[in-house]
Amino acid sequence: MTYCVAMNLRDGLVCVSDSRTNAGVDHIATFRKTHLFRSDDSGSKRVIVMMSAGNLATTQSVVSLLRARSQHDGEHVMNAANMFEVAELVGRTIREVVARDSGPQAQGVDFGCSMIVGGQIAGEPPRLFNVYPQGNFIESTEETPFFQIGESKYGRPIIDRVLRHDTTLAYAAQCALISVDSTMKSNLSVGLPLDLTIYRYDSFAPEQYRIDENDAYFRSLRTAWSEGLRRAFNELPAPPF
Amino acid sequence: MTYCVAMNLRDGLVCVSDSRTNAGVDHIATFRKTHLFRSDDSGSKRVIVMMSAGNLATTQSVVSLLRARSQHDGEHVMNAANMFEVAELVGRTIREVVARDSGPQAQGVDFGCSMIVGGQIAGEPPRLFNVYPQGNFIESTEETPFFQIGESKYGRPIIDRVLRHDTTLAYAAQCALISVDSTMKSNLSVGLPLDLTIYRYDSFAPEQYRIDENDAYFRSLRTAWSEGLRRAFNELPAPPF
Repeated sequence: MTYCVAMNLRDGLVCVSDSRTNAGVDHIATFRKTHLFRSDDSGSKRVIVMMSAGNLATTQSVVSLLRARSQHDGEHVMNAANMFEVAELVGRTIREVVARDSGPQAQGVDFGCSMIVGGQIAGEPPRLFNVYPQGNFIESTEETPFFQIGESKYGRPIIDRVLRHDTTLAYAAQCALISVDSTMKSNLSVGLPLDLTIYRYDSFAPEQYRIDENDAYFRSLRTAWSEGLRRAFNELPAPPF
Repeated sequence: MTYCVAMNLRDGLVCVSDSRTNAGVDHIATFRKTHLFRSDDSGSKRVIVMMSAGNLATTQSVVSLLRARSQHDGEHVMNAANMFEVAELVGRTIREVVARDSGPQAQGVDFGCSMIVGGQIAGEPPRLFNVYPQGNFIESTEETPFFQIGESKYGRPIIDRVLRHDTTLAYAAQCALISVDSTMKSNLSVGLPLDLTIYRYDSFAPEQYRIDENDAYFRSLRTAWSEGLRRAFNELPAPPF
């Protein structure tokens, strides 16, 4: 499985993905699920982050096609006028790849994938989309400023309790990392290393971090959260039974 | 949906179920999902708690049949020699009801249900079983002293972090209630009131509590947990980004 979470906040975007893929418990591998598209100096400035869950062959094909086509003429993610058009392109490419792979040989395999597409194109604010396996998509709002794909339930309660549209990027990143940590503790199919992307509004300069088991900050975060939770639990009102 | 969690610990059993059922979002109702079987003075002493998730028609039929048959001759849950036989009887009755309802009219409806069956029969310690829709079942151990059925993922991280086989019954009940609270916060298909059962080893006297939105202890628990979580979050080490 996979777990990715992305947040579109007042100050910008925060995206975290894990890197574990599995086809059965005896076929586990590490693949980066965060894909960054940045403009060089030609064309209109843009930063686009895509994260993927679902069939790995599909998501790799989708990202490869989007990248290859951006070198050529025609409509592509590097010349799309706005993020809405980027989301449309991603959805169309998902449909194209799934149609390519579906057929008599499919044998019931699920070729579907979900993608989170966020970023900023000069002239509009950062935007965030959740693209479904069917290729249609929804956009985040101030009321619902985050999307999750993959193994999303274990890590949802902390986001529901902590995240608001005006949460700072640093706190939002902490919240996202704790959300992933909770998921990893309860589900073997989500695993390190993590890819964290922080994008500040209008900066056009995303910061990317790879977090593995030796990352000093992440280790201290996990320990502090585990201790804080246990302390919060021990300080609860005495039960009447 | 539904959420039920049960724990078999050093000191006894803790069981919590919600009471919301839904067949689509516009058909929501409240049904008790915890069912208690107690011996009167005749026969060997026993306390059996069953909690159910899945198709409501199936689970009601299963519980009704188990109850009705315990008034008559033959093998039933009130004369079974041990909890293993009780779990077998529950599994067999699930198969019987699903077979009764499956047929040409089934129209793709899922008649399946899961049940948690815990309790103590004089002569053995308390035991806890998770009975699958297929009628087979597993038993808890010291390493894995709890089972969840229904919408289980949101509420799992707190159990994974807090619960051990030697956790006291009162703390375990708090942990179970927080687990349900986290689930209700993130998922509309799980709702109040809750049924909490605490059974102390060898007491043969289960304590039962019904917890609704006016329950003073549960309200203070939710508030304290929410504040404790937020405090734990705010006390995390400063992020390096």
